[in-house]
Formats: sequence, C-alpha cells, structure tokens
Amino acid sequence: MKIAVLPGDGIGPEIVAQAVRVLNALGQKFDLEEAPVGGAAYDVAGHPLPPATLELAKKADAILFGAVGDWKYDALARELRPEQAILGLRKHLELFANFRPAICYPELTAASSLKPEIIGGLDILIVRELNGDIYFGQPRGIRTSELPLFKGAREGFDTMHYSEPEVERIGHVAFEAARKRGKKICSVDKANVLESSQLWREVMIRISQEYPDVELSHMYVDNAAMQLVKAPKAFDVVVTGNLFGDILSDEAAMLTGSIGMLPSASLDKNNKGLYEPSHGSAPDIAGKGIANPLATILSAAMMLRYSLGMPAEADRIEKAVQKVLAQGLRTADIYTEGTQKVSTVQMGDAVVAAL
Amino acid sequence: MKIAVLPGDGIGPEIVAQAVRVLNALGQKFDLEEAPVGGAAYDVAGHPLPPATLELAKKADAILFGAVGDWKYDALARELRPEQAILGLRKHLELFANFRPAICYPELTAASSLKPEIIGGLDILIVRELNGDIYFGQPRGIRTSELPLFKGAREGFDTMHYSEPEVERIGHVAFEAARKRGKKICSVDKANVLESSQLWREVMIRISQEYPDVELSHMYVDNAAMQLVKAPKAFDVVVTGNLFGDILSDEAAMLTGSIGMLPSASLDKNNKGLYEPSHGSAPDIAGKGIANPLATILSAAMMLRYSLGMPAEADRIEKAVQKVLAQGLRTADIYTEGTQKVSTVQMGDAVVAAL
Ligand SMILES: CC(C)[C@H](C(=O)O)[C@@H](O)C(=O)O
Ligand SMILES: CC(C)[C@H](C(=O)O)[C@@H](O)C(=O)O
Repeated sequence: MKIAVLPGDGIGPEIVAQAVRVLNALGQKFDLEEAPVGGAAYDVAGHPLPPATLELAKKADAILFGAVGDWKYDALARELRPEQAILGLRKHLELFANFRPAICYPELTAASSLKPEIIGGLDILIVRELNGDIYFGQPRGIRTSELPLFKGAREGFDTMHYSEPEVERIGHVAFEAARKRGKKICSVDKANVLESSQLWREVMIRISQEYPDVELSHMYVDNAAMQLVKAPKAFDVVVTGNLFGDILSDEAAMLTGSIGMLPSASLDKNNKGLYEPSHGSAPDIAGKGIANPLATILSAAMMLRYSLGMPAEADRIEKAVQKVLAQGLRTADIYTEGTQKVSTVQMGDAVVAAL
Repeated sequence: MKIAVLPGDGIGPEIVAQAVRVLNALGQKFDLEEAPVGGAAYDVAGHPLPPATLELAKKADAILFGAVGDWKYDALARELRPEQAILGLRKHLELFANFRPAICYPELTAASSLKPEIIGGLDILIVRELNGDIYFGQPRGIRTSELPLFKGAREGFDTMHYSEPEVERIGHVAFEAARKRGKKICSVDKANVLESSQLWREVMIRISQEYPDVELSHMYVDNAAMQLVKAPKAFDVVVTGNLFGDILSDEAAMLTGSIGMLPSASLDKNNKGLYEPSHGSAPDIAGKGIANPLATILSAAMMLRYSLGMPAEADRIEKAVQKVLAQGLRTADIYTEGTQKVSTVQMGDAVVAAL
C-alpha cells in the first residue's frame, strides 16, 4: 500500500510527522514516500506542484497531505503560489468529493464560541464538490472592458459553472453518505439568483428519487450561513458546490471550536483520496512545536477507512484519539483550564501510547 | 419629502405599518405613498415590480421596504418571483452601497448562539456592493455543453464580474464609513482563486492610499466566515462584493442573535436609498401579529439620517427603541425569561409612546 506523504508548509511538516508515527505504530507495512509540495516545493523545484510530486501522488493509493501557504510567498505570481498545489492535485487526480465532518467533541465543547446547548454533540458532514464551479470555470481573466458603462476600464471576471454529470456524481456521493448516517440531506445553492444553482437544484431533485429513504431539503447559501449559527444540529449531511462549500465548511469547522481536530478527505470515483486537516498551515506558529496534530492523525484514520480498506485500523486510531482527550491532554489551541497542555510531539507520543 | 412605502409579503405589511406609525408620530410632514411589491404585486398586477411601483420608487426621496417572498410563489418562473422586485429596485435605482450593521444590543446578548464574552457589545458594519458581481454579470444561462468532457449534457453558468470603477465607488463609500467609525476596514475576497477578486483587491489597495488614517486589511471569504465566529469584535468595517456580502452579512446578523433588530440601507451615489430590515418575510409567522417591527423602525431611522437629512429625528427613534428595550419589552423572537412578551402592535405602541 503506497502512501504519498506531502507535508507542505508552515506547521505541515510537524503535524504530518506525528500522523506518520501513528501509522507506523499500527504494526502494518505501509510504503510511505515523501515529496515536497506548496511553498516548500517552490523553494526546491521552482513550482508548488513539481512533476515528481504529481507523479508520486498519481501512483500512490492515497495521499497524506499537511498544509500549504506562507506569507513569504505572497508576492509570487498566482500560478506559482502554494495554494496552486492543492488546486492542482484536486483537479489532476479528479478528487471531486470533499468530505468535511464538523464534529464537536464532548470534551472540547467549551472551546467553541457557541453556547454548549447549541453546539454540544454536533456531528454533521459537509460534502463539497471539488472539481468544478467558479474554481475552474472558463472563461476567466482580467481585461479591458467592452461594456458601454465601463468601456476602457479594466474588469475581472470568472465563470461559475456546473454541468449535469458533475452535479449528479457529487449528488450520488452525498446521498450515499446520508444513507449511512441520519438520512437527511440539505442541498445548498443560490437558485433564486444563479443559473448554475438552478441546474444544481434540478439535478438534486431528480436524483433524490433514487433515494426514497433519504429526506432532501434545499437552502439558499445565505440562509445556510445563518442556520449553521442558529441551529447547527438541525443538519445531517450538507451537499454544496465548490465555492459555497469552501465558505460553509470553514464556518462549520470554526463553530465547533475544535478546528484543530477536524480531518477531511477528497476522493475520486474509485475512492482514492487525499487526506488533510481542515485547518491551514498557520505560519505564525510554525516551528514552535505547539500545533495540534490530531486533525492530521484523524485524517490518516479516514485514509485507512476510505482508501485503504482498513476500517479496523481506522477505528483504533480514532479510539486512541478519544483516549488522549479523555486523559485531559490538550495542545494550546484546545486548552482550557483544568486540562494538561502538551506539545505537538507529546500529543503524538500520547496517541502512539494509546494505540 | 416623498417616501415610497413598499410593504411586500409575509410579515412585511405588519412591520411596515408600525414603522409608518412611528414616522407619523415624529410631528413632521412626510408624503407617504404606498405601492405593492413582490408576491403582493404579482397577485394584483402580474409582476413583482410593476411599472407603477418602480415609477413611485424612482420619484420618491427614499423607500421604506418591508420584505418579499412566500412559498406560494415558489412555482413561478424566476423572473416573476418576489425576489426579482428587490433585485430590480437595486439595479434600476443604482443602489450600489448596502450598509448592514451587525450590532449586539446589550439587553439582547442572551439571545445570541454565541457566548456573551464573544458577542457582547458587537458593533460592526458590513458594506456590501449591490449592483455588480455574479448577481448581474453576463453571460449566464442554461445550455447544452460544448465542453469535450460534458458534450451534449446541460450546463448552468454565471459570470462573476467586477470592473475597476465599480470597486472604486464601493471602496470609497466603505473607507468614508470607516473613517467615521473605528478607522479599520477589512476587504473580503477570494483573490487566491478568482480573477475578479484579484482586481478587487488591487483596487482596494490603490484607493486606500487616499485614506492614510484608515487601516486596510484583506481576508479570504472562507477565513472571514471563520473569524466572524471566532472573534467578531476584531472587525470594524467589512467591505465585500455582492455574493460574499450576501453570505457574510447574514452570518453576522445571525451571530448577534437579534436579527429582528437589524436595519439596512441600500444607497445610490446621491444618498437616495432603500431601507429594509435585515431579516426576511417570514411567511410562517405572517398575520399572527408576533413579528418584531424594530428592525423596520430602525430602518426608518436610518432613512431619516442618510437620505432625508434629519439626524435629530433619527436619534429620537433610536433612543425610543433603546427605551422600550430597557423597559423589558420583547417580541417573541428576542424573548427571554424575566422580560415581557409583546405583540407587533404593542411594540409599535411602546415606541410611539417612548417618542
Ligand atoms: C487554499 C484554497 C485555494 C483552498 C480552497 O479555496 O479550496 C482552501 O481554502 C480549502 O478550502 O482547501
Ligand atoms: C432575496 C435575495 C435575492 C437577496 C439577495 O441575495 O441579495 C437577499 O438574500 C438579500 O440579501 O437581500
């Protein structure tokens, strides 16, 4: 089983190192191969996603990804910036289905901005389409305007785009996921304004007929942003496009108060996937040894379950993480009075010991 | 002074009636003229924004708007649905600058989903561009795809679009507003992915040089959705495009817990404006006499201040609203134990009495 290990920038290397230790502690043989990605790859190879890294990602059975991005690359042209690596991997590997669970761990309820009665016990799943929408739609660019009103001025434009087959494939993935959970799915769009959303909604309604056991509802994205704040537990599975999913999955993650705990998976149609923490590269705390490795460790567990067919090993990791939380161990981001503050490595130690 | 009064659908007529009472109680002469809008206009005139209503709005000095939308119009073609009225008014009257304050009233802190220490005392202003972006960008539509991958399938598409003059004019409005407040402005975009955002950011940086006393920062929209949850009080003025503003202003409004209290203004370049509550038409509680009229009453106060040059009268209304809150009067949406639950009309009575 070949796993591409792409640590990336900022805290990426520190947190991925702990996830690798945990994988190695399972007592299984994994073929782990590391490659640079993001700013780290730009530094050594002049491109955030060098051909060798892409090749490795293609031939691996799964990818364990840290995070990319650092202010020091802000001045680079867009196509050389670290984020292009993650966009490139998603597109080249056709990782169209992004699973972003938003879970509020009972031990961490107090870390949330929200009142415990609103957020406690939250367990929702955001399924974000990852290969289409305004992220990749053509045409796009900056040009001189031909519009009568703005003639001669510069204008920037992008195309939001969804085709029926694209909506169908993410729809089926989301309905299947809902079927294994609370059997409720909320499709989020802006169909009162956007044509692409109108198509999106139509297709969701059509394919819902194949899932009579799953209850489909629709919500406009502005309302979804509100309802997540007001009553997040009313959701089960949320399915939405790339741009709305970007915004709502981050909002939902932050609502839990434990974004340092939340894994994510980005899958292709054969369940090959890229696994990364929901949080970013946090360059401000990089190298200090205080980052929370649990989201990455839990991403490795998702990898075992979805891509490598090793659900028992995934369970073992998830139980080990629960155990260290129950032991009261906390990295700085989730620390509250009465618990024990530990470093990145100490957290890794504890998970390995708990296995 | 001519005011167009457009009550609309759902709770619109009930809440606008109270705002009109409050205006009439000021002891000034206003020329108020009412016209149907939204579903109510479709019912009587076959269109959500009939020519007579648009004419009235054009010739008035300001517009007091209730809310539009009801499930019973869901089956109508998009161009006949109630929302088209508000989009049409914004576009025809060139109301490009939307001011959406998110304020957490001290008496209502407990109504928020957020912990009091996070939300208490919140007072931020979201400035949303309202005439451009993907709301109006061309081309858009649903057609048969010519893309090799999806050939023959249907596809929906929309154009996100901003020209330099459009970004400049909303930028200046936002910088001026920041100057009168905390002198901090956060421009929200998705410049790491979108070309239109890249232009947006460039222009914001350029015009910021005319406001050396105002501190400009930038944030990606996904991060903004998170930071609003984590530390909303860190913001002062947020300036953003039409689509991101739609999502973030609703999120921010809900964070306060008192969306029934939040007014909004949509202004043209001469400060003529449309004033409406931040909340919607709430058809589920329409006609029950329990809706909160305060957001609409406070919208009338904003109208006096921004469009009618009557700041003293605006102050009087705002003080009257503070007084009824201090008296412990609450409509159902903001009711908490120990306060007195009142109806829509009773709340109107109380504000009139407090004047
Ligand atoms: C880094 C950026 C391009 C990316 C996105 O917008 O998809 C990130 O925000 C994410 O959600 O993974
Ligand atoms: C009704 C709808 C078209 C509108 C919008 O998206 O702008 C509403 O959500 C708003 O924010 O005023």
